[in-house]
Amino acid sequence: MARGRRRVEDGATARRILAAAERHFAEQGLAGARTEEIATAAHANKAMLYYYFGDKRRLHRAVLENLTRQLRSTVFAPPKKKLSPRERFFQCVNGYFDFLAAHPNYPRLLQRQAMESRPEFDGMVRDFFRPLSREFARTLEEGIATGEFRAVDVDQIAMLTMQMTTSYFATAAMLGRVAGRDLLAPEAVAARKRALLDFLVHGLTAKGAKAR
Amino acid sequence: MARGRRRVEDGATARRILAAAERHFAEQGLAGARTEEIATAAHANKAMLYYYFGDKRRLHRAVLENLTRQLRSTVFAPPKKKLSPRERFFQCVNGYFDFLAAHPNYPRLLQRQAMESRPEFDGMVRDFFRPLSREFARTLEEGIATGEFRAVDVDQIAMLTMQMTTSYFATAAMLGRVAGRDLLAPEAVAARKRALLDFLVHGLTAKGAKAR
Repeated sequence: MARGRRRVEDGATARRILAAAERHFAEQGLAGARTEEIATAAHANKAMLYYYFGDKRRLHRAVLENLTRQLRSTVFAPPKKKLSPRERFFQCVNGYFDFLAAHPNYPRLLQRQAMESRPEFDGMVRDFFRPLSREFARTLEEGIATGEFRAVDVDQIAMLTMQMTTSYFATAAMLGRVAGRDLLAPEAVAARKRALLDFLVHGLTAKGAKAR
Repeated sequence: MARGRRRVEDGATARRILAAAERHFAEQGLAGARTEEIATAAHANKAMLYYYFGDKRRLHRAVLENLTRQLRSTVFAPPKKKLSPRERFFQCVNGYFDFLAAHPNYPRLLQRQAMESRPEFDGMVRDFFRPLSREFARTLEEGIATGEFRAVDVDQIAMLTMQMTTSYFATAAMLGRVAGRDLLAPEAVAARKRALLDFLVHGLTAKGAKAR
């Protein structure tokens, strides 16, 4: 019983370290964040951090993989009913947007990776972002074939869609100062989502198109 | 004459330090970049770097202000002839896109600032980004009034336009790995520009709209 209890406690410590690391890496990046501070914030110590995660770089990787796994299982689960390409495309955009709104550290971590172009990020690109981008592009292609979408450059639009969604959350703090209001407040997030979907509908359909 | 010559040499050293700092801050951020390495890359030494720029933080600020000043004077100069709101909007988007393509470090520096939300960035936000964003929004409003644009949320579209332009260059390295090709190659940049302008035209006009 003592052993089982320790396991549970160990799991809880690892999760606290992961959560603290997520915040610190999002705020300060891989180079700037300190394992000492992460351990303190998690009510743990550096020895435990190294015991669970090896080193700072591996901890960083664990943070990203943990979030990406959640995104994958919630957003890109196969749809329950048969959808048209257009419906699938917008379901995917909606899901991606909502996931980012609920996990505000993720876009900042992601954007840092994208900007710094780390070699160890290649695995994530290969396993997750390339398939995701292809899924967007393929859905757009199918929508063009069925006439739901106009003939756009599907790779470019797949990229633009991911960027328009991610960059809002990654830069909300600064853009809030530009706009002079809190862009992560629920009504601000809702307004952005409306504008994004409206813009996509008009950008992707030939003639005005009805609002979603 | 000796004095004049020294002045020129001093100016050249300061410019070399500024150029090296631009690359290093774009690659590694304010926290990650080292003044020692910047000085070495500029064929100077740390004493000269501190003499010209005070400290790392001020050097970083000087890099951003230098680029922003160039952007301002080239892109946002008043147009030579009278343009319609739609023409002005697209001239501005074109100019901003071309400036970023020609200064690939700028978007990465900008995005880091945006993500890290540094207090010292407030001056730049106030003096440059807020006016730029308002200029975009105002031009969109005028275009809606003349019927050139459909009724969009002008603040959201101003933000989206800046993000769609900036984030491409900020993340081109990683996205190149997603796409499996060099996204900063001239033909790739040209394809992105075409897709962006096409998408904006369709997203902003009520009925399909002719290509630019």
